[in-house]
Amino acid sequence: MIRLVEVGPRDGLQNEKDIVPVEVKLQFIEALAQAGYQEIEATSFVSPRWIPQLADAEEVSHQLKPHDGLTYTALIPNRKGLQRALECGYRRVAVFTAASEAFSQKNTNRTISESLQEFAPLVEEARKAEVSVRGYVSTAWHCPYAGRIDLKETIHVTEALIAMGIEEVSLGDTVGLAVPSEVELLLEQLHHHREKIALHFHDTSGTALANVLRAYQMGYTVFDCSAGGLGGCPYAPGASGNLASEDILYMFEQMGVPTGVDLQKVAAASSQLATHLNRKLPSRTLARLLATP
Amino acid sequence: MIRLVEVGPRDGLQNEKDIVPVEVKLQFIEALAQAGYQEIEATSFVSPRWIPQLADAEEVSHQLKPHDGLTYTALIPNRKGLQRALECGYRRVAVFTAASEAFSQKNTNRTISESLQEFAPLVEEARKAEVSVRGYVSTAWHCPYAGRIDLKETIHVTEALIAMGIEEVSLGDTVGLAVPSEVELLLEQLHHHREKIALHFHDTSGTALANVLRAYQMGYTVFDCSAGGLGGCPYAPGASGNLASEDILYMFEQMGVPTGVDLQKVAAASSQLATHLNRKLPSRTLARLLATP
Repeated sequence: MIRLVEVGPRDGLQNEKDIVPVEVKLQFIEALAQAGYQEIEATSFVSPRWIPQLADAEEVSHQLKPHDGLTYTALIPNRKGLQRALECGYRRVAVFTAASEAFSQKNTNRTISESLQEFAPLVEEARKAEVSVRGYVSTAWHCPYAGRIDLKETIHVTEALIAMGIEEVSLGDTVGLAVPSEVELLLEQLHHHREKIALHFHDTSGTALANVLRAYQMGYTVFDCSAGGLGGCPYAPGASGNLASEDILYMFEQMGVPTGVDLQKVAAASSQLATHLNRKLPSRTLARLLATP
Repeated sequence: MIRLVEVGPRDGLQNEKDIVPVEVKLQFIEALAQAGYQEIEATSFVSPRWIPQLADAEEVSHQLKPHDGLTYTALIPNRKGLQRALECGYRRVAVFTAASEAFSQKNTNRTISESLQEFAPLVEEARKAEVSVRGYVSTAWHCPYAGRIDLKETIHVTEALIAMGIEEVSLGDTVGLAVPSEVELLLEQLHHHREKIALHFHDTSGTALANVLRAYQMGYTVFDCSAGGLGGCPYAPGASGNLASEDILYMFEQMGVPTGVDLQKVAAASSQLATHLNRKLPSRTLARLLATP
């Protein structure tokens, strides 16, 4: 049994050049919800100045349909973001930092240590409101600015997030350069935390499913994915980004490992969105399903 | 240490809609040769009526430049093909059959048993000429016509080929539907032959590198790949086919496993061919390298 966290509506759509209309987003999210996910990251309460693609966060959030067994998550950058998420009724929020100091500075204009300091009271406030918190650690292996990351840094920030009460830490291969041996080196050292770790692989080099396999072999069972492979790679425009939901779903389904998610329904949701975006999405399995009569 | 067999010039180009001019093929093959491969499958002596893309087999073959440590291979369908290959000076040829009876009938108009009977004297003739023989087993796991293959069939044909003196059997996931657990099931049973087995994965579902990883973990070290991911999937037009050389090269290079092949040079060869073909090739790593300044 594995658990998939669908990040397409947030991590995918925030990287789209064009802004997707609210009703298209809602239709997409609802189609994904009906596919059976336990968790969908619906939007982000980052300032619209930074991410205009998600400026409709409130409008989208207020119209999300509840489903039994499904939790919607919202990404929040700070206290104001948390307040907005709470007002929209989210039961789960996600904060983000990085293992690379250079990436943290460029991406959030804060040091890692400043981020951690800011998160501690946020996590406490969220817990008081009975809202659980997920934490993203970007550049867990490689950084577009600093190159290969000393895994001690990744472990340090991961353990700091867990220590402050964050329920799940998602380790991101932000630039999609990690390979199975690197995944193994890090996950070996985090093994005692493995029930609190999710993996967020990018398929920029084609290695995402090999990395997933290695993590799964080591007892890790939570993976982030994005419908259709939505998202691109912001550090290599034109290249693939997020691991495609259809690809990971196909692999585990064919391996006989339950996911609780219906591949065909996810593919239908991606296909409908691709029609709206008027472009081919990068998922290999989606392309195969669409090409096979 | 792994060994890669580059099949792009044959298995890739035979699936191109348009016929690539001889001089472009030769430039492509020479660029791949200079990247350091030990083996490149250069062409096929199949009838031009079936594969007009490779009707120039003699013309290409006579102009191949020799390189220390590099063997060129030619695919041959029958005795006439062997004679043509021998006349062109090949030291290695490849025959092909399938694990699926339905596929064998549709693809070669012969039963598997008829193919094996035809190969036996061919292999003997080749060995007398000191020419080594590779054998492809298509549809080793899944067949586009018959669905999932009983692995007993795959094992039977693999062992029959080895018994008649074929040096290396390449097991093909022709439709790109295999996943690591299926790879494991078959390779466990062939473990005593593992030094004579190559794996030929397709990336149609995005699982090729995960399958490579599983095979490598089990002690298998020979993999077929195609520059740029050339080749498409003939059974799902528009979907990806052959595992891209750049993707497997990147993974093993980053894992510290020597391949003897220069990733940047392969990417340059693919990129030049992509310019000629006027389309983007499916390799993820190639797209990343071309997108990164």
